Amino acid sequence: MPVPNRKSPESLTDRLDQVTTLLRKHRLVENLVHKQEGAHQDLVEQLVHKQNTVELQRKLDELHPADAAFILESLPLEERLAVWQLVRSDRDGEILLEVSDAVREALIADMDDHEIIAAATNLDADELADLAPDLPRDVVRELMDTLDAQQRERLKSALSFDGDQVGALMDFDMVTIRDDVTLEVVSRYLRRFETLPDHTDKLFVVDLEGVLKGVLSVKKLLVTSDDQLVADVMTTDPVIFDPHDDAGEAVQAFERYNLVSAPVVDHKGKLQGRLTIEQMLDYIREENETDALNAAGLVEEEDIFASVWKSVRNRWAWLAVNLCTALVASRVIGLFENSIEQLVALAALMPIVAGVGGNSGNQTITLIVRGVATGQVQLSHGERLLRKEAGVALINGLVWGAVLGVIAWLLYFNIALSVVLMSAMVLNMMLAAFMGVVIPLLRVRMGGDPALGSSVLITAITDSGGFFIFLGLATVFLL
Amino acid sequence: MPVPNRKSPESLTDRLDQVTTLLRKHRLVENLVHKQEGAHQDLVEQLVHKQNTVELQRKLDELHPADAAFILESLPLEERLAVWQLVRSDRDGEILLEVSDAVREALIADMDDHEIIAAATNLDADELADLAPDLPRDVVRELMDTLDAQQRERLKSALSFDGDQVGALMDFDMVTIRDDVTLEVVSRYLRRFETLPDHTDKLFVVDLEGVLKGVLSVKKLLVTSDDQLVADVMTTDPVIFDPHDDAGEAVQAFERYNLVSAPVVDHKGKLQGRLTIEQMLDYIREENETDALNAAGLVEEEDIFASVWKSVRNRWAWLAVNLCTALVASRVIGLFENSIEQLVALAALMPIVAGVGGNSGNQTITLIVRGVATGQVQLSHGERLLRKEAGVALINGLVWGAVLGVIAWLLYFNIALSVVLMSAMVLNMMLAAFMGVVIPLLRVRMGGDPALGSSVLITAITDSGGFFIFLGLATVFLL
Repeated sequence: MPVPNRKSPESLTDRLDQVTTLLRKHRLVENLVHKQEGAHQDLVEQLVHKQNTVELQRKLDELHPADAAFILESLPLEERLAVWQLVRSDRDGEILLEVSDAVREALIADMDDHEIIAAATNLDADELADLAPDLPRDVVRELMDTLDAQQRERLKSALSFDGDQVGALMDFDMVTIRDDVTLEVVSRYLRRFETLPDHTDKLFVVDLEGVLKGVLSVKKLLVTSDDQLVADVMTTDPVIFDPHDDAGEAVQAFERYNLVSAPVVDHKGKLQGRLTIEQMLDYIREENETDALNAAGLVEEEDIFASVWKSVRNRWAWLAVNLCTALVASRVIGLFENSIEQLVALAALMPIVAGVGGNSGNQTITLIVRGVATGQVQLSHGERLLRKEAGVALINGLVWGAVLGVIAWLLYFNIALSVVLMSAMVLNMMLAAFMGVVIPLLRVRMGGDPALGSSVLITAITDSGGFFIFLGLATVFLL
Repeated sequence: MPVPNRKSPESLTDRLDQVTTLLRKHRLVENLVHKQEGAHQDLVEQLVHKQNTVELQRKLDELHPADAAFILESLPLEERLAVWQLVRSDRDGEILLEVSDAVREALIADMDDHEIIAAATNLDADELADLAPDLPRDVVRELMDTLDAQQRERLKSALSFDGDQVGALMDFDMVTIRDDVTLEVVSRYLRRFETLPDHTDKLFVVDLEGVLKGVLSVKKLLVTSDDQLVADVMTTDPVIFDPHDDAGEAVQAFERYNLVSAPVVDHKGKLQGRLTIEQMLDYIREENETDALNAAGLVEEEDIFASVWKSVRNRWAWLAVNLCTALVASRVIGLFENSIEQLVALAALMPIVAGVGGNSGNQTITLIVRGVATGQVQLSHGERLLRKEAGVALINGLVWGAVLGVIAWLLYFNIALSVVLMSAMVLNMMLAAFMGVVIPLLRVRMGGDPALGSSVLITAITDSGGFFIFLGLATVFLL
C-alpha cells in the first residue's frame, strides 16, 4: 500500500540540510580541484566532484519550485549562487516566480540576458508581468518580440496596472463555455483538456463577444444531471471584479464570500481574466510584509543575507525620519534647560511621561487605523470615538500617573513634583488619545493612507508633547 | 440578458448606509410609540413602525452572513443589538461564526440560553467548536446532549486541540471514495449529492478501515475518461497533515503548494478531517491581527465601540510593562543626575541617542524574527548575521552620529560634547544590533516564540543602554 508522503515544513528543513551538506562536499572538492589546477590533477577527486554535483542536481530537480525557492532564500549569497548554477535552466523561470523580491534581484543579477530569456520563455503573460519589473529593460523588450500577439497584448495590459490593482494580479488561465449547451457537452469538452488550470472551481460562461453571462461551478457540474442546459444551472450573479478595482478590496471579497476564483470583467462586461485565491494569498502576504517592515522602520523586504551596503540603504530613510523627530524633541527639552538645572529630577522623570504616552497613543491609533482599513470606522464616528478614547486615556492616566507619583515621591520626597508628574501623564495621554483618533480620520478625509508611518507620527507627538507638558508644568508650578 | 451583480466592498458600504437609515427610522418611531405608552396610541404611527421593521428585516434576510456580520461590527453597541434582535433566529448561528471575537461576545451576552441553543442547532461540529469557547458552560453541556454520537465525538475532539493546532481548524465535510471503482461510478455517486461541500477540489480515497490511500483531484476527474479506475489515476503522495501539526506550518504548506484543501490523517493513517484554504485564510488574518495588536501594546482584538472599562482592561497589561521599562531607564538617568546638573545639554541630547538606537534595533530584530518565522534563519547563521548587523550599525552610527555631532556643535559649541554624542550613537547602535540578533536566536534555542514582545524588549535595552552609554561617557570624558 502506498503511504502518503509528508510534505510539511519539518521535512523541508531536512531537505535544506541535505542540499547544504551536498553543496559543502561539492565545493570542498571543487576547491581541491582548483588548487591543483595546472598541476597534476587527481582523477579520483575529479570523479568524486562530478558525482557530488550530479547528486546535488538530482536533489534539486526533485524539489517543488517553491521548495527550491525556500532553499535558495535560506542560503548565504555565495552558496545561493552556486546552487542556482546547478538548477536546470528550464526550471529557472518557475523558481524565480517563487523567490522573494530581494532574492530574485540577486539571482537575476547573476544571469546573463541569454539565460534570462531562456528562463522566461516557459512563462505565461501574467507570470512574465510579475517578473518584468525586476528584469533589465532591453531583456523585456526582447521578450516582447518572442511572444505571440495575444500574449504580448496581455503582458502589456498587465504591466499597465499598478501592483495594487486587480488588473496586475489577474491571470488568463480560464475555461470558458457557452450557455446553450448541455452539461454533457461541457463534460465532453473538458475531457479534451490534458489538464485544467489550477484553482478551476468554476467555468466562465460567455457569449460570442466574450461578454460574461454567468459562471458554472464545478461542484454544480458534478452533482447535476447531464441533460440540463448550462443556461439553466449557471449562477448569473457571481462576484465579479473590474481590472481597476483595488486589490485589497478584492482580498476582502474573497475572504467574505469564500471564493477560490472569480472572473475579472471590463466596463463593457467582457471577460478579461480571473483572480484566484493564490494571487490573493500572495497579496495578503506582501501587504503584511510591508506593514511589518514599515512599522519597524524598513523600506522594503531585505534579503537576510544582503550585503551591508544594501542594508544600510534600506534602513537609512526611516532612521533619518526618526532622527528629525528626535531632534525636535531634543529642542523642546532645550527650551527648559534652566528648569532642569534647577531641578535635575525632571531630566530623569521626563522620559517616562513621553514613553508611556507613546505606548498609549500607539494603542489608540492602531485600533482606529485597523477600523478604517476594514471599513468599520467612518468619519461620522469621530466624535463618539474621541469621547471613548478620551475616557480610556483619563482612567489610564489617573491610575498610572498615581502609581508613578507615589514612586517619584519615594525617590525625591517632593509632593509637588509628584502632582506635576501625575498631571503631565494624564495630559499627555489625553493628547495621545486625541491625536490617535484625529490623525487617521483627517488622513481619510484627505484621501491618504491612514496607516503609513502612523506609529512614527504619534510617537513624535507624544515625545515632544510629553516633554513640553511635563517640563512646562514643572517650570510654572515648581520653580 | 442577466447582468452579473457586483458584490464588491463599495456596495457593501452602501448597504450599511441603507440599514443604518432604516434603523434610525425604526428607532425614531419606536421611541414615539414608547412615549405615548399608556396614553392614546396613534394607529398610523404603529403601522409606520411595523412597516419600517418589516423592510429592515427583509433587507437583513437578503444579506450574506458575512455582510450581516460586517454591518453588525460597524454599528455602535446600542444599534448593533437592535439590529441583532431583528435577524431571523435560524440565521443567528451562521452570522455568529462570521463576526469578530469581540463583537461575538457582545451578541452572545445579549441572548438567553434558549436562543443560543436554537442558533447552534444549525451548525456542524467544527463550527460549534469555533463558537464553544465564547458560550456559557452549561449551554455547551446542553448542546452536547442534543448532538448525535458522531457529532459529539467530533466536537469533543476539536475542543481537545488548542487553537494553533490543525485539529482545532479542520472540518469534517469530506467526500470519500474507494479506489477499486471506475471514474464513472464516482461521477454517478457524486450526482446523488444535492450539493458538494465548499472547497471540494479533491475527493479522498480511503479503504474499508478509513485509512487514506490517496486523493483524486476534481480536475483529474473532469479530464480523465470514465472507464479508468480510481486507483490508477489518484495521487498517492498528497500533502497531508496530522491533527497535532502546527497551524502556522499548515499555512506555509498551503501557500507553498497552492492547496485548496488537504486531508488530515492520524498517526495510524486514518482520515480524520480536512483543512481548507478558508480556515487557513482565517488563521492568517487572526495571526496578523495578533501581531499588529501586540506590537501596539494591546492584548486582544478590541471592538471599536467597546465600553471604556473594557478598553482599559485590554490595554493595561502592556502599559504596565512599558511603565516598568520606563522606570528602569529613568533610574539609569538618576545615576547621572550630578553630571546633568553640571552640563544640562546632556538632558536635551540623551533622548536622541536612545531613540535612534531603538529604531535601529527594531529594524534588526524585525528582520531576524521574520527570518526565523519563515525558517530562513537558523541558529548556525548567528555569527554571520552578527557580523553583518554590526557592520550596518557601525556605518549608520558613524554617519548619523557625525550629522548629530555637527548639529550639537552648532547648538552648544562644545567639540568634546559632539564627540561623546557621536561615540554614544555608534556604541548604542552596535548594542542594538548585537541584541537584535542575539535575543531572537537565544529564544529559539530555548524553544520560545521570538516574536512576542520583541519590540518592547529591544526598546527597553536601547533606552536604558543609550542613557547609560551617553551619560557614562560624558561623565568620564567631559566633567
